[in-house]
Amino acid sequence: MEALSAATQDEVRRHNLARILRRLHVGGPTSRSDLVAFTGLNRSTVGVLVAELADAGLVVEQAGATGSVGRPSLVVAPVPESAVAIAFDVRVERLVGAVVGFGGQVLARQEQVHRRSGFKPSTGVKQMVSMAHALVAAVPTGVRWIGTGVGVPGIVDLSDGLVRLAPNLGWVDAPLGEMVTEALEIDFGSSPATVIGNDADLGAVAEHVRGAAAGSRNVIYLSGEVGVGGGIVLDGRLMSSAGGYGGEVGHMVMNPLGEVCRCGSRGCWETMIGRDAIVRGAGLVAESAEVIDVVRAADLGDTQAKQSLADAGDWLGTGIGNLVNIFNPEVIVLGGHLGDLLPQVSGVLFDRVGNSIRPSREQVTVVAPGLGRDSTLIGAAEGVFASLLPDPLGALARSITLVPR
Amino acid sequence: MEALSAATQDEVRRHNLARILRRLHVGGPTSRSDLVAFTGLNRSTVGVLVAELADAGLVVEQAGATGSVGRPSLVVAPVPESAVAIAFDVRVERLVGAVVGFGGQVLARQEQVHRRSGFKPSTGVKQMVSMAHALVAAVPTGVRWIGTGVGVPGIVDLSDGLVRLAPNLGWVDAPLGEMVTEALEIDFGSSPATVIGNDADLGAVAEHVRGAAAGSRNVIYLSGEVGVGGGIVLDGRLMSSAGGYGGEVGHMVMNPLGEVCRCGSRGCWETMIGRDAIVRGAGLVAESAEVIDVVRAADLGDTQAKQSLADAGDWLGTGIGNLVNIFNPEVIVLGGHLGDLLPQVSGVLFDRVGNSIRPSREQVTVVAPGLGRDSTLIGAAEGVFASLLPDPLGALARSITLVPR
Repeated sequence: MEALSAATQDEVRRHNLARILRRLHVGGPTSRSDLVAFTGLNRSTVGVLVAELADAGLVVEQAGATGSVGRPSLVVAPVPESAVAIAFDVRVERLVGAVVGFGGQVLARQEQVHRRSGFKPSTGVKQMVSMAHALVAAVPTGVRWIGTGVGVPGIVDLSDGLVRLAPNLGWVDAPLGEMVTEALEIDFGSSPATVIGNDADLGAVAEHVRGAAAGSRNVIYLSGEVGVGGGIVLDGRLMSSAGGYGGEVGHMVMNPLGEVCRCGSRGCWETMIGRDAIVRGAGLVAESAEVIDVVRAADLGDTQAKQSLADAGDWLGTGIGNLVNIFNPEVIVLGGHLGDLLPQVSGVLFDRVGNSIRPSREQVTVVAPGLGRDSTLIGAAEGVFASLLPDPLGALARSITLVPR
Repeated sequence: MEALSAATQDEVRRHNLARILRRLHVGGPTSRSDLVAFTGLNRSTVGVLVAELADAGLVVEQAGATGSVGRPSLVVAPVPESAVAIAFDVRVERLVGAVVGFGGQVLARQEQVHRRSGFKPSTGVKQMVSMAHALVAAVPTGVRWIGTGVGVPGIVDLSDGLVRLAPNLGWVDAPLGEMVTEALEIDFGSSPATVIGNDADLGAVAEHVRGAAAGSRNVIYLSGEVGVGGGIVLDGRLMSSAGGYGGEVGHMVMNPLGEVCRCGSRGCWETMIGRDAIVRGAGLVAESAEVIDVVRAADLGDTQAKQSLADAGDWLGTGIGNLVNIFNPEVIVLGGHLGDLLPQVSGVLFDRVGNSIRPSREQVTVVAPGLGRDSTLIGAAEGVFASLLPDPLGALARSITLVPR
C-alpha cells in the first residue's frame, strides 16, 4: 500500500492548501494562529503552506489589528490582484460585468442595458468582450486573469458551457462557453477558460459563500430575473442531478388552468410570480416597467398595484411552502425582483408558508439577498475561483497578465 | 504529518474493507480476481481483507461456476446468517416484517393487516415484537442479529428515531426508535440498535441499491401508501436537508382550489393521486377498496373507474413533470399503488411529463419498482446494513445471537 499512501500524502497537502486558500478567500485576512486552529495542523506545517502561497504572490503577511496588549500580530492577507476573475451576469435586459479579485473584492464593475429582442448569443458575446476591455482599463496593470465566469438565465451543460435553453432570451443550444473564450482570445491575444453557469445556481453559491446564507448548509436561491429560477445548495454543495439541469422551480406547475408559459407548459409558478405577470397585473406595460415600479405605485395607494402584489405574494408563499416541504432548507433567499416584493407581501407570504409541514417550516428563514442584485455576478466569479483553490499553482501557470490596451 | 498519515492508512484499510463488503452485499458471490479488479488493490491485499472477513464468519470461499475450461475458480460468498437485520414496513393498514441476511437475502417474511383507526405507536410496537418472534422462529438457530430497521409513512428525526408527524396514521412526536428497542429488549433479553426511516426514503435506497434504479445516481422513489411521499437519492446518497424532513412531494400544492389535505393545507398532490382520491373517484368506498380494485373495474369497462384513473394519471404526470424540472433525475420509481396505475395511465402520464423542460425530460425514465411492494421493507434492512459495512467487527461485537423461544 506504499504507493497509495504516497498519493494520499500529496492529496492531504493539496487538501490543506485548498482549505487555507478558501479560508482566506472567504474570511479575508487571518492570523497564523487562527489558521492553525482552523486547519488543526501544527504551526510549522501552516508556515510551510503559507510560505508557498506567499512565493506564488497570492498572499502577503502584514501587521494586523493590535490585540488588547502587546505588539500587533501578523496576519496572512489575500492579494486581490494576484488572481482575478472576469465575471458576467447576462440578464434578460441587462449585462453586468466585474473584475473580482482573490478574496472576493470587486475591483471594477460595469453595467449596460439592452433590449430583449434581438439579443442573440453573438450580440451578448460582443458586448462581453467590449465590457471586458472597459473593466481591464479600470484595474491596476499586471493583475493575473485566471478565468472568466458567466451566469445565464437558462439551462446550461456544465461540461462544455453549452446553453441548452434560455427561454426568456430565446436561446437554444448556444455554445456560449466556447464563443466567449474564442472572442476573448482574439481580442486579448490569449484567454484562460470560461465557466458558464445557471444564474440561480451561481446566485445560490454566492449567497451561500458570502451572502445572506453564509453558514447554512441547505440553501435555496430564487432568481427573479423576468423569469424565476432556483439554485439549490444541499449539504454545502450545489445539488447534483443527471445533467446539471435541475432547480427549474419556476416551471413547477401550480395551476393547471393557468396561463401558458414561455417553456410551453401551462400554469408554471413563473406565470404567476414572474416580472411580466406582476407588472401586467398592476396595469403597467411589461418590458417598460419593473416590479419596483409596482411597489412604488402600491406605496402611493394604487389599488390595482396593491392587488397585483397581494396575488404575487400569495403564489410566492404557496410555492415557497412547496419548496419547504420538498427540500426542508435552512434559508430561502429571494433574489432579483422577488426580493423587491418581500417587504410588501411578507404577511400573506408567511401565512402561505405556514401551510407547509411543521417540522420543516420551523427550520426555515426567508430572506432578501446579502449581495443585493449582484449574487449571480459574484457567483460567476466564485465559479472561476473554484478552479484556483484546489490547484493554485496550476491556475496561476495558466493565467494571463492583463495590461490595458 | 506522520500521525495524520497513520490515521489515513487505517482509514484507507477500513474504506477498502467496506468496499469489498458492499460489493459482496450488493453483488453476491464474487471471485477474488473480480474483487481485485473492482477495488484496484493488489491480490495479496485483497487476500488479507477477505481472510479477515472469513475469520469473522461474514464470508466463505467456495467453488464458483466453472469457467470455459479448467478447474472451477473460488468465489467469495456472503454468509446470510452471519449478520441479519430485522426489518419492518409500518404501513397505514398493514405491517410487514422480514429477517434479511447479509447479502440481501430475505430469510423470513410476515405480514399482518390492521385497521387504520386505533393503530397507535404502542399498538404498532406490540405487533412488531410479536412478529419478531414469529420471524425468528422461521430462521435457523444462531443467526447474528445486528439491528432493527423500521420504515414509517411520516417525517422522522433520524438522530433519535422520533416520528415527528405521520399524518395518515395520526402519529405526532412518537419516540418510535426508543420504544421498539426497549420492547425488543424486554422480550429478547437484549436488543441491538433500531433505525427508523421515512418509508419513501427507505424505498429509494432499496430501489437504488438493488432495484429498478440500480446503477443510476439520481433517483426519486414515490411511495403510494394511502398518502404519497418521496425519497430522493442524489449522486448516490439520500438528499441532505436541514432536519432530514425533505422529500415531502405529496404535499406539493398543485391546485390551490383543491381539497383540504390531512396535512392541513389545500390542493396537495396527495389529494389528487392518493389512494382515497382514486378509490372515491371511482365511486368505491375508501378504506375498503384498493387502487388495484379500480384498475380491475376499469378493465371490465366501468366508465367511472376509467375516468378516475384518467384523472389520477393526468395529475400524476403533471407532478412528475414538476419533479423532472426540479430534480432532473435519471429514474423515477412509482411505488405502492402508484405503480399499479402505471400500465393504465402511461399514455396521459407521458403526455404530461412531456411538458417538462426538454433537456431534463430526455434524461428521465419512469418505472415500476424492481422490488414490488417490498422496497421500503428491504430499505429498512439496508438502513441496518449501512452500520455493518463501515465497521463489521464492531457491528458483530454488538450483535445478538438469536435462538427461538
